[in-house]
Amino acid sequence: MNKDKLISEIRRKGSFLCVGLDTDPKKIPSHLLREKDPVFTFNKAIIDATADHCVAYKPNLAFYEALGPAGLESLEKTMEYIPADFFTIADAKRGDIGNTAASYAKTFFETFNFDSVTVAPYMGRDSVDPFLNYEGKWAILLALTSNKSSADFQMKKLENGRYLYEEVIQESKEWGSDSDLMYVVGATKADLLLSIRKFIPNHFLLVPGVGAQGGSLSEVAQYGMNKDVGLLVNSSRGILYASNGDDFAEAAKREAKKLHTEMKELLSKV
Amino acid sequence: MNKDKLISEIRRKGSFLCVGLDTDPKKIPSHLLREKDPVFTFNKAIIDATADHCVAYKPNLAFYEALGPAGLESLEKTMEYIPADFFTIADAKRGDIGNTAASYAKTFFETFNFDSVTVAPYMGRDSVDPFLNYEGKWAILLALTSNKSSADFQMKKLENGRYLYEEVIQESKEWGSDSDLMYVVGATKADLLLSIRKFIPNHFLLVPGVGAQGGSLSEVAQYGMNKDVGLLVNSSRGILYASNGDDFAEAAKREAKKLHTEMKELLSKV
Repeated sequence: MNKDKLISEIRRKGSFLCVGLDTDPKKIPSHLLREKDPVFTFNKAIIDATADHCVAYKPNLAFYEALGPAGLESLEKTMEYIPADFFTIADAKRGDIGNTAASYAKTFFETFNFDSVTVAPYMGRDSVDPFLNYEGKWAILLALTSNKSSADFQMKKLENGRYLYEEVIQESKEWGSDSDLMYVVGATKADLLLSIRKFIPNHFLLVPGVGAQGGSLSEVAQYGMNKDVGLLVNSSRGILYASNGDDFAEAAKREAKKLHTEMKELLSKV
Repeated sequence: MNKDKLISEIRRKGSFLCVGLDTDPKKIPSHLLREKDPVFTFNKAIIDATADHCVAYKPNLAFYEALGPAGLESLEKTMEYIPADFFTIADAKRGDIGNTAASYAKTFFETFNFDSVTVAPYMGRDSVDPFLNYEGKWAILLALTSNKSSADFQMKKLENGRYLYEEVIQESKEWGSDSDLMYVVGATKADLLLSIRKFIPNHFLLVPGVGAQGGSLSEVAQYGMNKDVGLLVNSSRGILYASNGDDFAEAAKREAKKLHTEMKELLSKV
């Protein structure tokens, strides 16, 4: 999906919500475990329940791989089920040398037909480049993540005065454009979005950490929104596991709708 | 596999060679494509041909995932085929927040029963910790990689005077011990092994980049070997694709044996 189409979907729906499909068989309602493919059955119900309220879905690969080949089959079925007008993100955080990165790009863009994949920057440009050679596809580079230990290295100051995460943004923005490169910035660091926007005023940001991790949606919008909205805000556990009873899909819809309503309000102001 | 057992296997065989199973259907001999599972058939022949000359096998996940569920089945069969006295490395370069990292640890240590997994450090301690809670299992942290673009961030100097890769080693060595943590250091940076050994005299290093990438085995041994050998040197393409004819397994054996002979010689000096 290209940038214009993404922006128009966000405007049309009044939502920049991404639903993270971190589907863990240990956390889904136990009655689903009797199904042939509990993970896909759960995802299908979640997609049906949330489709009116979001513009993107983001399966995290860790949860599918943990189930072996059957997990990748659940992922394939999930990807086939998601309608074409949703932006899809493989949350994979891959990063490897050139020929291997090219194989990961093939995995996510061709085998599974995702629109985008999250990529770790530690190995530098040649580990990211192979993700940038696909028409209408995106690399989403980790910049400042939402976890506590992001301070260990991302917030280390370099000799040149920049924090490592700033250096990652500053260097990498030349590798692609705001039409094939996005950045992950955690909602738990919303105050830093203002300075990040100085480096990349026009890029989309994928913002995890609203909900279970404690980030504030209104602060993210206040500091991070640009003229094209420029945000995809993700919620995973807060939506998926709002209830673990028979009403899990209704509960997921309620949580997604809450965020949607708040987003409509925030979008009406810009 | 614990550290004592790994050292004793290296001593017994006179080899610290790891064979990287980066099995790409586009590069394997075309006559294998008629097999039901070409990737497993190729791996099986490579394992049979190289088992006398190496102590470890390292499948790179990118090549298996690119084939979807069938690729993970080939990986499962490969893991079942590798005898128990070989050290196995999932070259996955994962790194994600705590609950997701825990799911990756489960994937590689439980679902696929690897001894170790390569992990990217960018997200910090809580993305690595879940890999350290398994008896006899290892996290292998990226420190200084063999690719050209490792200079982009890993070789950036911090305010405290250290390079980022040195900071990664210095900080992370406290997260585990030399019995559950190794580091990736590329053979293309052999001269830096001397300074790396000042930070971590006792840890094992996984060293890719010998062969196709141009690193020198004798330099790696000269600068990186410690009292326990402390090295696993990987070769992937140089062994796997030594020939793409009917003689691919013999050619792989010949290349593995060449490295083994050189390793025996290097080990006899210490």
